Amino acid sequence: MTAYAQKTTEQNALTVLQAQFDADMKEVNAHIIANMQSDVPLIPQLANYLIASGGKRVRPLLTLSATALFMGDMARAHQLAAAVEFIHTATLLHDDVVDDSDKRRGQESANALFGNEASVLVGDFLFSRAFQLMTADGSLEILKILSDASAIIAEGEVKQLSVQNNLETTLEDYFKVIEGKTAALFAAACEVGPIIAGRNRDEVKAMRDYGHHLGMVFQITDDVLDYDPERSKLGKTIGDDFREGKMTAPIIFALQSANEEEKTFWRRTIGDKEQNANDFQIALEYLQKHNCLEQSFGLIKHHEDAATEALSIIPKSNLKSTLIDFIAFITSRNK
Amino acid sequence: MTAYAQKTTEQNALTVLQAQFDADMKEVNAHIIANMQSDVPLIPQLANYLIASGGKRVRPLLTLSATALFMGDMARAHQLAAAVEFIHTATLLHDDVVDDSDKRRGQESANALFGNEASVLVGDFLFSRAFQLMTADGSLEILKILSDASAIIAEGEVKQLSVQNNLETTLEDYFKVIEGKTAALFAAACEVGPIIAGRNRDEVKAMRDYGHHLGMVFQITDDVLDYDPERSKLGKTIGDDFREGKMTAPIIFALQSANEEEKTFWRRTIGDKEQNANDFQIALEYLQKHNCLEQSFGLIKHHEDAATEALSIIPKSNLKSTLIDFIAFITSRNK
Repeated sequence: MTAYAQKTTEQNALTVLQAQFDADMKEVNAHIIANMQSDVPLIPQLANYLIASGGKRVRPLLTLSATALFMGDMARAHQLAAAVEFIHTATLLHDDVVDDSDKRRGQESANALFGNEASVLVGDFLFSRAFQLMTADGSLEILKILSDASAIIAEGEVKQLSVQNNLETTLEDYFKVIEGKTAALFAAACEVGPIIAGRNRDEVKAMRDYGHHLGMVFQITDDVLDYDPERSKLGKTIGDDFREGKMTAPIIFALQSANEEEKTFWRRTIGDKEQNANDFQIALEYLQKHNCLEQSFGLIKHHEDAATEALSIIPKSNLKSTLIDFIAFITSRNK
Repeated sequence: MTAYAQKTTEQNALTVLQAQFDADMKEVNAHIIANMQSDVPLIPQLANYLIASGGKRVRPLLTLSATALFMGDMARAHQLAAAVEFIHTATLLHDDVVDDSDKRRGQESANALFGNEASVLVGDFLFSRAFQLMTADGSLEILKILSDASAIIAEGEVKQLSVQNNLETTLEDYFKVIEGKTAALFAAACEVGPIIAGRNRDEVKAMRDYGHHLGMVFQITDDVLDYDPERSKLGKTIGDDFREGKMTAPIIFALQSANEEEKTFWRRTIGDKEQNANDFQIALEYLQKHNCLEQSFGLIKHHEDAATEALSIIPKSNLKSTLIDFIAFITSRNK
């Protein structure tokens, strides 16, 4: 945890950002609601189910913050933040179809309730709407950033398919997967801010880098938390990634240090997906034996530092401090 | 059939267009191949499977034709025609997942071979690539046309889900479905041409209308052919739509004229999807009894005439004549 995070133990950085951008977020929501309308009733029904189900709206909040940081036009930020959230929502819908998930944020996932077909097609609709919003905004630079991000997201997701249950997966493969899964859209959501404000290349790059590293922190933390026994004491489910055979940082580290017996175990449980009731417990023991969570925290620390460093060229302000605090919040969330 | 079509019985209009734009289509293919590359091998593998499997490339051919008709910049047309084909291919991939099809153009569909997950995600990738190509082209007007078309496509597909097996489906509902399924992208593919060439609103509208009505002709013809006993004599499969309970023009007409016994039949076979081996034969008899194919041909004729009429403001040229012949070709294809 950084020094900043300790200052905000009582009101965490997310709460600070949400309070600061409360009025702006209402405008973002108005764009979201207006643009999910359609005279095909299933579209607003399904979209509303997702939108109402909450989520923290981290990505639109980043676009708002990054625009406000440079005193950019907030009206444009509202519209583009809605586009960013639509891309994210479309990705979630398609993800749940791919994972065949029946839960999302603790409630029934859209595909379980409305069917895979509707999830695929409403995802396509929201994705199209995102591009309509960006086109209405009119910046080709922003269209390029978000269409590039969309391609990287899809590539990362396809790569995730290819590496699932594949014990040969390297850390490099994993980084590519999570860049697509999370960091690319975080980076784009932040980069949009200084572009709206017409700032210079260095400032644009600073915000992009901040978003990228923040996204990496977000995803690696997520992947570590799924093996954190402390969370299960709080009544949260852990072990989903293990059961699906996802090749995330803790498992990749475990394989790097595995002896023959352990390799056989990982081959059976992850490679061949043959798992017994007791296997997750054994997995946790192997992870502990080789300090795999600590090694993963090392990756997180690297990206935390890089995210902070990215902001070094940005002048001091309360908002900048909150964005730095936000890095530590991401790591400590859900704990 | 129009008078023009009779002139071209030996070399059909598609062949004429393909020959005329052979060199251009090679450029389009070069864009397609360059843009389906990725260092995630599954993406070019799956994309290549689809691209190599052929299809007539009707949509990019329309963009090329509509650009050449106004002497627009063909280099831009090549790139945008590739974007149009990517949107179409993404739609096909997602369609097959939705329909759970295992055949496409007579060969195994991509989802049967690569899995639904890969089809969803590679579809997303191609869709993103389409927007990257349009962004590189740099026309916000064209971005608007194609992002609007993409939203209409998704809306139409969701609507198709809602009306499937629903005997209350009206012709209006059906028109909305097929506009999304086919006509919206035909219209956009054509509209791009005069915009590249910087032509006036009337000419842009003429090409958009031509594309729209051509797309309607294309889809209604497709829907009629699926009930055409002549085709099954040629060894082609018919009756797929009946078995899936799709509410297409012939069935909607049959329901309009149905007596109580027939209504009971349609409720069981289409509404409840309870079908016996002999039912398709009975369906064909009911369609014949009420002249449902003829009534559907009436719809086709309306759109054929409207497509021809749309081109009336365009000066006479060989290419214009071929585009008019192409309307009749669409109706007569596969027969």
